[in-house]
Amino acid sequence: MTPPPADENRLIDWLRRRTGGALIGDLIGDDAAVLPAGSFVVTVDHQIAGIHFPPGLDLALAARRLLAVNLSDLAAMGARPAYAFLALAAPPGFDHRRFFTALLAACRRHGLTLAGGDLARHSVLTTSLTLLGTKEETARWLTRSGARPGHALWLGGTIGESAAGRILIERGAPQAASASLRRAMRKAMRRHLQPTPQLALGHWLGRQQEGAAMDVSDGLARDLHRLCRASGVGAEVDAAALPFTDRFRMLCEAIGADPLALALGGGEDYVLLFTLPEGIAPPEPGARRIGGITKGQRLVLLREGKHTALPDAGWDHLAQK
Amino acid sequence: MTPPPADENRLIDWLRRRTGGALIGDLIGDDAAVLPAGSFVVTVDHQIAGIHFPPGLDLALAARRLLAVNLSDLAAMGARPAYAFLALAAPPGFDHRRFFTALLAACRRHGLTLAGGDLARHSVLTTSLTLLGTKEETARWLTRSGARPGHALWLGGTIGESAAGRILIERGAPQAASASLRRAMRKAMRRHLQPTPQLALGHWLGRQQEGAAMDVSDGLARDLHRLCRASGVGAEVDAAALPFTDRFRMLCEAIGADPLALALGGGEDYVLLFTLPEGIAPPEPGARRIGGITKGQRLVLLREGKHTALPDAGWDHLAQK
Repeated sequence: MTPPPADENRLIDWLRRRTGGALIGDLIGDDAAVLPAGSFVVTVDHQIAGIHFPPGLDLALAARRLLAVNLSDLAAMGARPAYAFLALAAPPGFDHRRFFTALLAACRRHGLTLAGGDLARHSVLTTSLTLLGTKEETARWLTRSGARPGHALWLGGTIGESAAGRILIERGAPQAASASLRRAMRKAMRRHLQPTPQLALGHWLGRQQEGAAMDVSDGLARDLHRLCRASGVGAEVDAAALPFTDRFRMLCEAIGADPLALALGGGEDYVLLFTLPEGIAPPEPGARRIGGITKGQRLVLLREGKHTALPDAGWDHLAQK
Repeated sequence: MTPPPADENRLIDWLRRRTGGALIGDLIGDDAAVLPAGSFVVTVDHQIAGIHFPPGLDLALAARRLLAVNLSDLAAMGARPAYAFLALAAPPGFDHRRFFTALLAACRRHGLTLAGGDLARHSVLTTSLTLLGTKEETARWLTRSGARPGHALWLGGTIGESAAGRILIERGAPQAASASLRRAMRKAMRRHLQPTPQLALGHWLGRQQEGAAMDVSDGLARDLHRLCRASGVGAEVDAAALPFTDRFRMLCEAIGADPLALALGGGEDYVLLFTLPEGIAPPEPGARRIGGITKGQRLVLLREGKHTALPDAGWDHLAQK
């Protein structure tokens, strides 16, 4: 059976009032939502308490994180957020209003309409969000298969900090002597819990003639392998060019992690990894060129003058090398 | 963090082979799936082990049930199945291949392309399916708001049997003296676990000039209230016209349930509830006219010559009356 929250009708009335009728579809009316005709991309992501985020996380943060992680997929396609569909299973006593207030506010900021969903009860907070995105007529959809030998390889922002934040959340933050380290730890945890999808960068990339793009969710090493496989190319990454901040190095020292292993394999960075022809630089201030696309299928890490193979592996494996 | 199944790459390779490249989108390539331009309806449904289906259910049945329940929403819109997106969180040791073999076969039968998804680990099997449907150019989308006073009120098939099946599964089937009762119990459990979405009926309704439609998932009483609210009308249901079979009455006696309460409030029937102008009958053999749409907002049950209010309530409440 499908036990909806006891006060589902009241919740839906409340949602309708909160959105001023901007809701469409099955949360408030029909069995499915009718979309205006158009060209869409679709992405689906799960977020489950205790798996994808800490079980006791503030529901407003959980809602914003769910949306941000999904929006990052739209950013990676060069898409503009259009419609959201939420499947939410929540334990008894769940504060639906806190969750939806944050979700709807974040939807509004990104031009998203919450267009439908499915509510149920479950002992563990389980959310699944489907997003549909559109594009400007003159833009193209970004794909992973657009990398060509000779392209420069770019990152849209820093990597590794989110994984450091996750470790701090899981293990508990150590007593920090310096105020700057305490700040760095807080910032890393926030970065992990509240990633910033690079939508504007994705739109800019969609207006370029060529280049591949994806978002870094499983770590630079694994995701670069995916991009290169999809494009049938190799790549060379310059370790010295990776966007490491002093703050990140300090943080790694405090938690006993190798900065390079964490950056290459930590994941959940939610910055864009993309390629561009030589001579074109993105307008994103935090973007950094980290290497280039090569012929063949080899992925190489250039470090202190030496070339080594970049393995298709996550942090757990890279840290043991 | 998002821990994918350890053998996610192998699983995805296997999926790609199984589908002969018919997969598109993020399960096999990019961060989101690009759809061909068109007009779509979208529906999302959760199915969680222990909540929506018994925890030990055969994974092939679980996959088919997930799809059938969602397809019923498309049927209610008059839509043709087009794309499916699956978020699947499964415990260690989960037999992904059994699940996907059944899901892909069912998708093929309905003309659906599995276009993307998200895989994760979770102690409880948790699935969320997003379906996109299209329509014939000359057809209309069905809605709940199309009921008009004077319309006849129809059901696409029997109701109550699925709820009886659910009770049998939850409580365990009693020792049955007669072979016919044993058959009836097996049939009811199968009806609950493997509903049949009324897609052909939905398509036929979409080609009619007028009329409202929805699928009965929360019980005829609650769902008829929804349809009438959306249309701003009332309704009269003739209890004697409800499609009760002898098998259903025998079953209700065996489990000690009131047939009328179970039919009105049991839910998960996944037959269509719809309205049509007088003089038009659907080609569906199991469809039955059960009453009519009236002016005003009253929902009335006509039973043994007496009119009583039809409450907006589920079986638990109706059975106590």
